[in-house]
Amino acid sequence: MGRVTERRRVIRIREGAVSTRPDTLVAEEPLEIRLNGKPLAITMRTPGDDFALAAGFLVSEGVLGSAEELANIVYCAGATEDGSNTYNVVDVRLAPGVPVPDITLERNVYTTSSCGLCGKASLDAVRTTARWSITDGPTPIRLEPSLLSVLPDRLREAQRVFDRTGGLHAAALFSPDGELLDVREDVGRHNAVDKLVGRALQQGLLPLSGVILLVSGRASFELVQKAAMAGIPVLAAVSAPSSLAVDLAAETGMTLVGFLRGSSMNVYAGEQRVALG
Amino acid sequence: MGRVTERRRVIRIREGAVSTRPDTLVAEEPLEIRLNGKPLAITMRTPGDDFALAAGFLVSEGVLGSAEELANIVYCAGATEDGSNTYNVVDVRLAPGVPVPDITLERNVYTTSSCGLCGKASLDAVRTTARWSITDGPTPIRLEPSLLSVLPDRLREAQRVFDRTGGLHAAALFSPDGELLDVREDVGRHNAVDKLVGRALQQGLLPLSGVILLVSGRASFELVQKAAMAGIPVLAAVSAPSSLAVDLAAETGMTLVGFLRGSSMNVYAGEQRVALG
Repeated sequence: MGRVTERRRVIRIREGAVSTRPDTLVAEEPLEIRLNGKPLAITMRTPGDDFALAAGFLVSEGVLGSAEELANIVYCAGATEDGSNTYNVVDVRLAPGVPVPDITLERNVYTTSSCGLCGKASLDAVRTTARWSITDGPTPIRLEPSLLSVLPDRLREAQRVFDRTGGLHAAALFSPDGELLDVREDVGRHNAVDKLVGRALQQGLLPLSGVILLVSGRASFELVQKAAMAGIPVLAAVSAPSSLAVDLAAETGMTLVGFLRGSSMNVYAGEQRVALG
Repeated sequence: MGRVTERRRVIRIREGAVSTRPDTLVAEEPLEIRLNGKPLAITMRTPGDDFALAAGFLVSEGVLGSAEELANIVYCAGATEDGSNTYNVVDVRLAPGVPVPDITLERNVYTTSSCGLCGKASLDAVRTTARWSITDGPTPIRLEPSLLSVLPDRLREAQRVFDRTGGLHAAALFSPDGELLDVREDVGRHNAVDKLVGRALQQGLLPLSGVILLVSGRASFELVQKAAMAGIPVLAAVSAPSSLAVDLAAETGMTLVGFLRGSSMNVYAGEQRVALG
């Protein structure tokens, strides 16, 4: 699609010197996700992997769990007056017999607990909608810190766009021995994870047992939620987690590593998967 | 409220040495915003300044423009089974006679243009809902790069929580001569800006003519939108902007500075407000 980056004129100021030149920026456009023809959500995203993004979003929402539940995903045509396609509206059609949930964005996700709306309700909602328990795969995962340490560099090497724009969040899947399985980038960190998970669904790889998810930024509740809904046992983040992210990781049995920088890192939950010597 | 940070046990790994200690994390909890009693949106936020957050969110959505349009904001009581308050649901009541818009989250914001849903529609939506044109205030703004350069340090000095958790986004308002007017922090960068704008509304300071908004991270479309809806003429970001953020800044007449680091910066729009020598 050629829209991952766009060029704009920029005035650069460096040590008092002023120059004008074209600059490469990360592209950002709205994407409307429809479910069986009904508008469900709009996200600001970097174009590309839109079908994977939509599929992954629906995994996070508990709607999709396997490729068999998915009939197809299409771009909605005729969205413009002249009939051309903006490629910014996708419709996800569920397979016959798959129930279409009555979900209105995140509205009802957080109101299932006795507390009405609180951190505990957010945790409860993940537990009640999750398709899988988190598992390690065929063999228990035990990660050496030295292996975790090299993952951020491998992510950066694999990032095609970051060096040019500095504006992309990245998310990557690794095997327990550090092999890069997939990497996605987006202006929104949640979108990058949705794209990874959606591609895994399309390839019949869910749940992602025995896989490490690495994100380039912070670990919010939302990212831990997406990892949990995909069945991912290890989430590592370059920056800080929030309190609710740690609570959700602990409750779901996920290993959560934060501040992964060089040989330093913090383990916030699921320490049994980290070889602590 | 004492919930801006929370303590959790963490295992620290530093150069192979392992230690366990309590760690301070940024708190994250859901906040439901109701408008005249009707649920409107849920955001994951750091507790504190919740009324300002709700008010600022409604400024960004074009619902509120002045303190006079606001009757009051209250925490909804009895949200739990035992009747105690989670302080996670707020109801914003508009003053009598103020029209209650039929807004369903961001759903209809982006579908007003002839293209259906595209970047241009996103730009059009801001223009049609904005209350004010962007203006400089009593005197035209002309910022020396050397003044812009010191703002990130002033923001960091003012951040009370960042040093302890590393998990907070910060946003600050400065006068054109570099005086710090206000600073807010949140686990979500959009929340930090909403809190700033909401406090300005409560103090009768909208539109924020002649004010600089500095954000600690990237400049997305959403942040430029929030600045535009508050009438802010200058947005400076420590990291990269997106293409649509630059387009919106240019269309609204806003000055957009990115990669503001030390004496270096990029000016993406509104260069007439920057003294380029």
